[in-house]
Amino acid sequence: MRDQEQLAIRILDEVAGLSRDGIGITREAYGDGEERAMRAIERHAAALGFLAERDRFQNLWLRLPEDTRTAPPVVIGSHLDSVPQGGNFDGLAGVLAGLLVLDRLRGRADAAAPVRVLALRGEESAWYGKAYTGSLALLGRLPPSALALRHRRGHGTLGEAMARTGVDVAAVSRGEALVRPGEIAAYLELHIEQGPVMIARGWASTVVTGIRGNIRHHRIRCVGEAGHSGAVPRWLRKDAVLAVAELLSSMDEHWRVLLQMGVDLVMTAGICTTAAESHAVSVIPGEVEFSFEIRSQDSSTLTRFYGLFQEACQTIAAARGVRFTFDEAITSPPAAMDEGWIARLEASGAARGVPVERLPSGAGHDAAVFAGAGIPSAMVFVRNANGSHNPHEAMDTADLMDGVELLLGALLAEAV
Amino acid sequence: MRDQEQLAIRILDEVAGLSRDGIGITREAYGDGEERAMRAIERHAAALGFLAERDRFQNLWLRLPEDTRTAPPVVIGSHLDSVPQGGNFDGLAGVLAGLLVLDRLRGRADAAAPVRVLALRGEESAWYGKAYTGSLALLGRLPPSALALRHRRGHGTLGEAMARTGVDVAAVSRGEALVRPGEIAAYLELHIEQGPVMIARGWASTVVTGIRGNIRHHRIRCVGEAGHSGAVPRWLRKDAVLAVAELLSSMDEHWRVLLQMGVDLVMTAGICTTAAESHAVSVIPGEVEFSFEIRSQDSSTLTRFYGLFQEACQTIAAARGVRFTFDEAITSPPAAMDEGWIARLEASGAARGVPVERLPSGAGHDAAVFAGAGIPSAMVFVRNANGSHNPHEAMDTADLMDGVELLLGALLAEAV
Repeated sequence: MRDQEQLAIRILDEVAGLSRDGIGITREAYGDGEERAMRAIERHAAALGFLAERDRFQNLWLRLPEDTRTAPPVVIGSHLDSVPQGGNFDGLAGVLAGLLVLDRLRGRADAAAPVRVLALRGEESAWYGKAYTGSLALLGRLPPSALALRHRRGHGTLGEAMARTGVDVAAVSRGEALVRPGEIAAYLELHIEQGPVMIARGWASTVVTGIRGNIRHHRIRCVGEAGHSGAVPRWLRKDAVLAVAELLSSMDEHWRVLLQMGVDLVMTAGICTTAAESHAVSVIPGEVEFSFEIRSQDSSTLTRFYGLFQEACQTIAAARGVRFTFDEAITSPPAAMDEGWIARLEASGAARGVPVERLPSGAGHDAAVFAGAGIPSAMVFVRNANGSHNPHEAMDTADLMDGVELLLGALLAEAV
Repeated sequence: MRDQEQLAIRILDEVAGLSRDGIGITREAYGDGEERAMRAIERHAAALGFLAERDRFQNLWLRLPEDTRTAPPVVIGSHLDSVPQGGNFDGLAGVLAGLLVLDRLRGRADAAAPVRVLALRGEESAWYGKAYTGSLALLGRLPPSALALRHRRGHGTLGEAMARTGVDVAAVSRGEALVRPGEIAAYLELHIEQGPVMIARGWASTVVTGIRGNIRHHRIRCVGEAGHSGAVPRWLRKDAVLAVAELLSSMDEHWRVLLQMGVDLVMTAGICTTAAESHAVSVIPGEVEFSFEIRSQDSSTLTRFYGLFQEACQTIAAARGVRFTFDEAITSPPAAMDEGWIARLEASGAARGVPVERLPSGAGHDAAVFAGAGIPSAMVFVRNANGSHNPHEAMDTADLMDGVELLLGALLAEAV
């Protein structure tokens, strides 16, 4: 265990050294940093005596040579790419956890199913505007149109980058699945928490209950009427700022009450601006543009809260003489984690005398793709400070080892 | 009366013709358009047989030659400058009204006091960032530092423009008053309404009760904490948008209630923006900048509502973990109109069988400067569509004549 922690630190440091960009960590999807990370994992896997093999889409698979069972394996996976100027732990920690679990299973035949470790590519949407390209392609679920998505800096497409990496792009574009749902017993993923809850609560590891889906508007306009701030009385105003303030405040209050009722929900208006060309201190604001996003593990919560939002827009529009116009709502469904595996992970913690708390995942993960394909999936979160997607991600290796222990215990439990 | 309306239309058209800029009307303070308008008024005054005279600060005074009384006169005034690409009626209508009143007083000795018409310069702050420079200088109340204010396009100062127009700038900078408060019996000003109330209510003329003062912050920052929109639960958020939304909504509700109690108040947050460099749909907004302005005819309403605002900021900061930082509050005191003259104007309407409603002025006017100097002042508003400071100002000349009638009646009443 002590040795494993030393190994974990060595691998984390080595991969960080291969992907530093001067500010943070950059491992571009289907690019150099990701490939260097993959080769480092391959070297360590070889040194540990694992069998390492890339599939036709250039994802990396590891397994124990002595485990020759042909039953559908439990896959422990995560991704090796990062956002630009990101942190070292988002993705890599999960692949490393798989490698450490595999190491612990060496010479043992008591894991309930054969175990494979999977290092995926292209999870981050930062590079081509689409997330989970590696896992979607693997399961034959990447829309062929995604291959034409352009790189964030405009040079080249996802398909071209895949081809350079050695991916069988023709197979991807045919929607060929390298793995069919029935061929995998379960997909497990360890990931750093991207929120602050575990730090605030003092939890080293948690079991993820589900991955929140979302409904999102990038751009809603509230159009009222500009006017002299001194000369127009309240009853003749159509103030877009006060309309949006009332809208967001009332939704915030609904949210507060729903949380008290135990509903899983977050709500964010990340962008909210009056019109820079025409706004002024002494002009009644005639226009506000804002974004609106809700996330929940429960699709009916999403649908009902979104309905409430639309109703509030209508009521406020009627009361205040403003109108709301909406861009297309973008919807991403929630992914439930497998209750059986949640129970196994909880039992694994309990067996060590460490009760494991449950936490929803607000961010998306490859696990959602596997769950969406009908593969029983589960996730372990590891405590992490300062959020993710930035150079200040801070995971303690001791916490990672705690997560490894949790996974291991779940795998060694009876009957998958 | 019919002839007078024809004359009014002729003068309005003529002055408009002298100040068209291709889009609207431009009569720059201490500039060409203002000077052309002043000369046009001088020509018409001469044609009507009035005595016309410019003071040392290049304001124009008109009087009837036959009225040789030396008692302090009632001054009917307004300004001849406009904002860039503005409308024809803001200011000019009031000077014209004075000229028409004087015309109606010709050959009569029954006005309660001698009447002077005053065409002021430099009322609009659009040119040098300071309003009422003509009336402030006249009363010895223009701070000498104002002479160094730069033109909106950066070329030259207010002092230089005044000098080019023939103003005795040395006297202005000494704070020399050309008129002392005791030398004027009253200051009356007719002006187009800059709000929509009179159109909405169907009122041709109204009597102004007072000119609203204001308290204004150009830039208040609400600083919270950015974070992942999916991964941070409500209890760990410091959402700057929801904090400002709650603040503005609660102040809006206070405002609504105070209006029901008969308080005079308007409230505006004309600018409200998340930080363009860092805001995003899926990031909890960590910062909002907004302006906040309140106006009232009553200074204690301003003080108390501002106190309520500060309290709300504190409460919300404590509850939501955000902090508010404020730029310096800019305060402009309200100006009460003279109750005696309000009563005279109301009596004047009543005598014609037209009850005259009262209306506060949300915008500032030269009348506030005269009132501030202790001169009994009053204003008449004339119905006008589409606000002011834009080419779409729309005053009906018949409504102007109604205002003239109102002024005339008040002047002919007994004992000033």
